[in-house]
Amino acid sequence: MDKLHRNERIGALIKILSDNPNKIFTLNYFTDLFNAAKSTISEDIVIVKKIMEKFSFGEVETISGAAGGVKYTPVSSMNNAKKFVKELCTKLMSPERIIPGGFIYMTDVIYSPDTVAVIGEILATQFVSLEPDYVLTVETKGIPVALMTARALNIPLLIVRRDSKVTEGSTVSINYVSGSTRRIQTMSLSKRSIKKNTKSIFIDDFMKAGGTAHGIIELMKEFENEVVGIGVLIETKEPRHKLVNSYVSLLTLDEVDEEKGKINIQPSRLFI
Amino acid sequence: MDKLHRNERIGALIKILSDNPNKIFTLNYFTDLFNAAKSTISEDIVIVKKIMEKFSFGEVETISGAAGGVKYTPVSSMNNAKKFVKELCTKLMSPERIIPGGFIYMTDVIYSPDTVAVIGEILATQFVSLEPDYVLTVETKGIPVALMTARALNIPLLIVRRDSKVTEGSTVSINYVSGSTRRIQTMSLSKRSIKKNTKSIFIDDFMKAGGTAHGIIELMKEFENEVVGIGVLIETKEPRHKLVNSYVSLLTLDEVDEEKGKINIQPSRLFI
Repeated sequence: MDKLHRNERIGALIKILSDNPNKIFTLNYFTDLFNAAKSTISEDIVIVKKIMEKFSFGEVETISGAAGGVKYTPVSSMNNAKKFVKELCTKLMSPERIIPGGFIYMTDVIYSPDTVAVIGEILATQFVSLEPDYVLTVETKGIPVALMTARALNIPLLIVRRDSKVTEGSTVSINYVSGSTRRIQTMSLSKRSIKKNTKSIFIDDFMKAGGTAHGIIELMKEFENEVVGIGVLIETKEPRHKLVNSYVSLLTLDEVDEEKGKINIQPSRLFI
Repeated sequence: MDKLHRNERIGALIKILSDNPNKIFTLNYFTDLFNAAKSTISEDIVIVKKIMEKFSFGEVETISGAAGGVKYTPVSSMNNAKKFVKELCTKLMSPERIIPGGFIYMTDVIYSPDTVAVIGEILATQFVSLEPDYVLTVETKGIPVALMTARALNIPLLIVRRDSKVTEGSTVSINYVSGSTRRIQTMSLSKRSIKKNTKSIFIDDFMKAGGTAHGIIELMKEFENEVVGIGVLIETKEPRHKLVNSYVSLLTLDEVDEEKGKINIQPSRLFI
């Protein structure tokens, strides 16, 4: 490639880094791509770092040493996260969302790519320092949020199934009791999908009593994997005592009053 | 915000556009954000357009008129797509992937965020000109690819369920016959999730006889929605006659020879 203008290198750097969150690129990768000196690229990276900071796009980190290079982490600032959670709250409290039985219709929100991309970045920000190896979720509705969290962290997604599918080879299954319905349920994961002595975070759309999260922790013991974090989009206020101790939620659902046509949701404590 | 350098505006423009594919931003949005004149922003956009072209990152389009502005489409170039498909092919042909019963283990690939992001962009490129309103998929394994296709197109994802869940309100269900196993299966979609007189594309991980795709077309008739495109990551060579006429696949699976420990996969015709 011919010599590029600084503008062009800065633009390309930002595109490549932001398309590949949490991936380390060597300086050599960019000197080759841009046909430029190492010192030039280093100067470019300083500018990129400033741009990312100025606009709260996230953090650019320079790693020194043999395995060194540069990586981008889409850390969402607490201010931006709070603003987003508040707006989401307003959106979900619309009375037309009430479904007979006291449920809330929210698939349009949790299947909307640009919305789940932001939710994923907010959740990833909570857990990035724990350096998890996998994002776990249980089919079906939590998958989009979990995938976007995995994308922001640049780690694989694992989808725990409600039954064992022959096309994934041998699986480990456990039975667990749903915290709210008290029914016995099954969850299973393919044996080869996960390495031993690893760490994971569990991401889901909704938590009531925490039975699914508790089941995941049990399942992961079979894999010698430690669940180091749990994050959900929305938790219910009741029961106050969940089956898991430590988790992060963006929103808390207080009540759905079908008679009055009123939904009461608040940002969770962390995001007030 | 204080006056910015051109570098900074270019960098921020690229980050914002590329995080929001297929979304139209008005010039006013950027004049406000950057505290800069319209003519300055217009010049910046010309530079951004050139950078995106030079590196085959996609297309930046300027739309004139009252609803005008600028938008970014992550069109993957045919060269890049072919290269990616070829590499994926090699990866999937590894003999350790054979699962007893003649299946291939590929969840690590289809749940890997950076891989499905590229697959999503390649599939989106195939269908963007049809201007679909929704991306449809059926739970479970196709969801990550479908979400990333929806993200690249900036349109909602709809996940068709294998059963009807009470938390999504009233649903429309159909029974259909699986093309390969000949078993009767059910699929359902919440009534309120889709508007009438709309267009959709169906995205899945795998197609054998095309029974699921055919079922989706039938289901969508109930919603007065037209399925204008079908895209899958991998199709099987046999049966040659599928239950749907027109579809795009990235890869074609010829055979899994358990005895010889050999998997035969080729890039599909479009990507050779």
